Amino acid sequence: MKTDEKIAALRGLMEEKGIDVYYVPNGDDHLSDEYVADYFKSKSWLSGFSGDSGAVVVTKDFAGLWTDGRYFTQAEKELAGSCVELMRMAQAGVPDVRDFAVDAVPENGVLGFDGSVISASEAMTLSKRLSAKHARLHTSDDLVGQVWGKQRPKMPEGKLFVLAKKYTGTGAEERIAQTREAMKNAEADVLVLTQLEDPCWLFNVRGDDIACTPVPYAFAMLTAKKAYYYVDRAKLTPQTEAHLKKAGVTVKGYKALASDLAKLRNKTIWTDLAKLNTVLYQALDQSNSVINRRSPIVMFRAVKNNTEIKNIRNAHVKDGVAMVKFLKWVKEHADQNLNEVSAQNHLYALRAEGKDYIEPSFTTICAYRANAAMMHYSATGQDYAEISPDGFLLVDSGGTYKDGTTDITRTIALGALNETEKKYYTMVLKGHLALSRAKFLYGTTGNNLDILARGPMWSMDIDYQCGTGHGVGHVLSVHEGPHGIRWGMNPSRPNAVLEPGMVVTDEPGIYLPGELGIRIENELLVTKGTRNFYGQFLYFEDLTYCPYEREAIVPSLLSDEELAQLNAYHRNVCEVLSPYLEGEELEWLKQACAEIDR
Amino acid sequence: MKTDEKIAALRGLMEEKGIDVYYVPNGDDHLSDEYVADYFKSKSWLSGFSGDSGAVVVTKDFAGLWTDGRYFTQAEKELAGSCVELMRMAQAGVPDVRDFAVDAVPENGVLGFDGSVISASEAMTLSKRLSAKHARLHTSDDLVGQVWGKQRPKMPEGKLFVLAKKYTGTGAEERIAQTREAMKNAEADVLVLTQLEDPCWLFNVRGDDIACTPVPYAFAMLTAKKAYYYVDRAKLTPQTEAHLKKAGVTVKGYKALASDLAKLRNKTIWTDLAKLNTVLYQALDQSNSVINRRSPIVMFRAVKNNTEIKNIRNAHVKDGVAMVKFLKWVKEHADQNLNEVSAQNHLYALRAEGKDYIEPSFTTICAYRANAAMMHYSATGQDYAEISPDGFLLVDSGGTYKDGTTDITRTIALGALNETEKKYYTMVLKGHLALSRAKFLYGTTGNNLDILARGPMWSMDIDYQCGTGHGVGHVLSVHEGPHGIRWGMNPSRPNAVLEPGMVVTDEPGIYLPGELGIRIENELLVTKGTRNFYGQFLYFEDLTYCPYEREAIVPSLLSDEELAQLNAYHRNVCEVLSPYLEGEELEWLKQACAEIDR
Repeated sequence: MKTDEKIAALRGLMEEKGIDVYYVPNGDDHLSDEYVADYFKSKSWLSGFSGDSGAVVVTKDFAGLWTDGRYFTQAEKELAGSCVELMRMAQAGVPDVRDFAVDAVPENGVLGFDGSVISASEAMTLSKRLSAKHARLHTSDDLVGQVWGKQRPKMPEGKLFVLAKKYTGTGAEERIAQTREAMKNAEADVLVLTQLEDPCWLFNVRGDDIACTPVPYAFAMLTAKKAYYYVDRAKLTPQTEAHLKKAGVTVKGYKALASDLAKLRNKTIWTDLAKLNTVLYQALDQSNSVINRRSPIVMFRAVKNNTEIKNIRNAHVKDGVAMVKFLKWVKEHADQNLNEVSAQNHLYALRAEGKDYIEPSFTTICAYRANAAMMHYSATGQDYAEISPDGFLLVDSGGTYKDGTTDITRTIALGALNETEKKYYTMVLKGHLALSRAKFLYGTTGNNLDILARGPMWSMDIDYQCGTGHGVGHVLSVHEGPHGIRWGMNPSRPNAVLEPGMVVTDEPGIYLPGELGIRIENELLVTKGTRNFYGQFLYFEDLTYCPYEREAIVPSLLSDEELAQLNAYHRNVCEVLSPYLEGEELEWLKQACAEIDR
Repeated sequence: MKTDEKIAALRGLMEEKGIDVYYVPNGDDHLSDEYVADYFKSKSWLSGFSGDSGAVVVTKDFAGLWTDGRYFTQAEKELAGSCVELMRMAQAGVPDVRDFAVDAVPENGVLGFDGSVISASEAMTLSKRLSAKHARLHTSDDLVGQVWGKQRPKMPEGKLFVLAKKYTGTGAEERIAQTREAMKNAEADVLVLTQLEDPCWLFNVRGDDIACTPVPYAFAMLTAKKAYYYVDRAKLTPQTEAHLKKAGVTVKGYKALASDLAKLRNKTIWTDLAKLNTVLYQALDQSNSVINRRSPIVMFRAVKNNTEIKNIRNAHVKDGVAMVKFLKWVKEHADQNLNEVSAQNHLYALRAEGKDYIEPSFTTICAYRANAAMMHYSATGQDYAEISPDGFLLVDSGGTYKDGTTDITRTIALGALNETEKKYYTMVLKGHLALSRAKFLYGTTGNNLDILARGPMWSMDIDYQCGTGHGVGHVLSVHEGPHGIRWGMNPSRPNAVLEPGMVVTDEPGIYLPGELGIRIENELLVTKGTRNFYGQFLYFEDLTYCPYEREAIVPSLLSDEELAQLNAYHRNVCEVLSPYLEGEELEWLKQACAEIDR
């Protein structure tokens, strides 16, 4: 089926259902932020645009794909020859996709979408906006799915596995009890968990339905007495079945949540309407009352316990070993017909040698020279750059191990660097070091700290136009809230106070389009310091063990304090990783970590 | 009348009116934050406690004065022998004064207060809390005023004066037009201005009713066609009368606002319910609708125009000259029987020599050694320390001139300092310099920047437990919002984005109770820097011209960047102030500003 045929078929169904405008976002039943299974890639299938970000709107006489600047070139290519117009997000004159969809609906008209991939809160907002012109929503039909028919990929069927208590520190029973305590405090009878990571944390299980994130498609529902896990039974193994049974968890089919929700009467239900899809929300009876609040498990996930911390450190040692081997290898092979893809494949292979390795924690960014200026660049077999022994190679990568999730960026000198490259590298390093040596009182958020990392760039009239850091899950998503390091204030998504046990990345950078991209990233652990008259002081502990790029550092730009911090970090990296390396690799590490003087 | 007699008389009136609990806060008709006229010091008159902070609650069988830690010793002394109990705020077991007042009201009971000194929003909150026990408010009687009777001080009668356009840059007509534009955008028919600074800014008049702030007790009301100024006619001079007439302003009596508000019907009224007193709010007819929002003039006042900026710089030159003369004098006279009061009186006198000087912009803090650890210490004729030629003298002072308002703190070495004093001084200086050299993108708030100033103290496990900086008015209050530099997030009082033209102080410190207090404060002007691809960069320009304490600086603790910044500042101070000094004073300035090396 060609794109235009698909659009025509969709328009036929729209007419049948009396729908004027149909909106196809880029989401799954759980409103996941990042990776979704192929089953949910309706927008891509319909439009022919294969990129991950964007949405489609179809009216009687218009079809448009909205996507952001990272994808303009790709989208132009992929949409060429079809009736789908490219709507360049954030460009002058291009309306917001939701504004466009609402505006395109006529008086008394109908805006349609698949209610299972739009959140209840978004649907409410759209409905309210439409009511001004007596228009309404139609949310009960997945029209793209109907056109797609038998060609549609199946829902993924990855097997579940148990994450043992030696990795998690606390058992499923304890986690269920802890969550029930939060429900009790909130006076909630029922907790509905829709974010994919939440049931995983709660039941200590993981899955394999989504790229780079060890989670299954599943929901959970908790009451004071019962725990329900909504997951396709085919995904269970004897081990997981026994584990869940022991924890008192009742397994039900993935689709059973809607009917179970429909049975609730006069209950106080805790759920996050930004993460509950419209179909599930509409299943709720009016006799219930809803506490619309972030799931308590978001914070439980964010604050790691001592066992998790010990394990995370262990994962970072394995990761550091792989990174050191990679750094040595890539520098030594830069003149041997390497390209971005062969380099990143070598890193994938090195990381996979680590004990308990599961998968990459995200798609590696291996970007040579100017490619690194594209923050979300990803080399593919079709589209990549050759590497030569000069300039910078930026590598942002990570692994999910059974003991922890890693995320690290190193910008590597493959040969000679010019003065600008060195200066910029050193300025990024200054910001990176300033954040990691911060000491701060309890109550501080990432909004308070961001300037420490960003300041050196701002001092040069440069900005890196993204946050400085994000939370990292434990054998879950590599990007997790509720905290982060960023300077902008978003009242609807406030940066959580930094709590001891939280993990956050420290990744300032410089990105000059067409020129270069530099980023340095470690993971940091929020740690308790002195407690005195003024309160509880906190500081960061580096979780990442990997030398910085000494060839790119201009020592004269560093203060004594920064130089001392840098050398102390390198000494520690060398000490921690040495036992796991030998021969030339050990020698290389020692040289990479040797004292840097003025 | 003794305190207990006053309390007894108040209880008699409470019984007459059927009031169970009477609440006496520390405020005026305008809900002013700082200075109030003696007329409004009901709490002090009733309780015998003369301090500025606090509130009194009286029930049938209890009378308590709430005040904070700064005043415990004073309050103990002044309350001794009376029936009024000292309630030490923020101490364990001491309830919040409002919580106490609400809790003390019985089922179906009555909480009374003078509605003219409690804001509408606070009254609403109290009323809502009381409704749970079917209790209500009584707001129409100033019972303390009735007991006070003829002994009560008169309302102040300071004369108004015009602040000429050469000082303000824009005339009253322009300011009225600008404000009407804001009303139009907000679709407001009427703007009610209750904060004392607002009518002053709007009409370019000033007054003399309150200590250290050149404002009269007055209200204003603006419509699309009319401008009303509610002020006691006795305060007018022929000049101000003519000025107001020319600007199209109708003068009415101070008390006439309530009746004018009562006449409004079917209007959309813009007012800030946190700054509108309850009596005025209750005067409004139900047919009106209220836009409860900060007055637009708060932002107009905060963003200085070019004329104001030029004048403010001029005021700071005069201020710097007075400060330099003072610094030299106090260091040379530290061994000549000086005390905190004689020192601050000398500074008052020096500042008064400045052209267009009006008054101090706040009560000087002149605090020797450990006294400086009390952030709001104020030496009085009864209570002061003798000065000897060693240790630190902290002097926080400022002046209001017709061209601007100043606020500066210097911590002065009167003689030998120990290593700790020098180290701490240098760390405070590091924070102070870091904030002043910040460069930042438009959109930044003081929450983002605070850590620059506070970081050096936090790195030593020390906090200064207050904000780093506040906005400064133009010939108005020395403390003005809506911006500031502080790290805590207060959702109900968000830190405004820093706009070019805003003035803010930079005053980190170290306060060790019983030991020492160090603070260094300059005023900074938010200034436009580069505008490029990333946005509009801003930076700070120092408005304060006065050398730091070179004898307290440990150069080895400063980075090259900090040392260069310090020396550049001193060079500029020397260049700016030199033309206004001669002889020994000029020599002293040159030495105070001489290059500092490692």
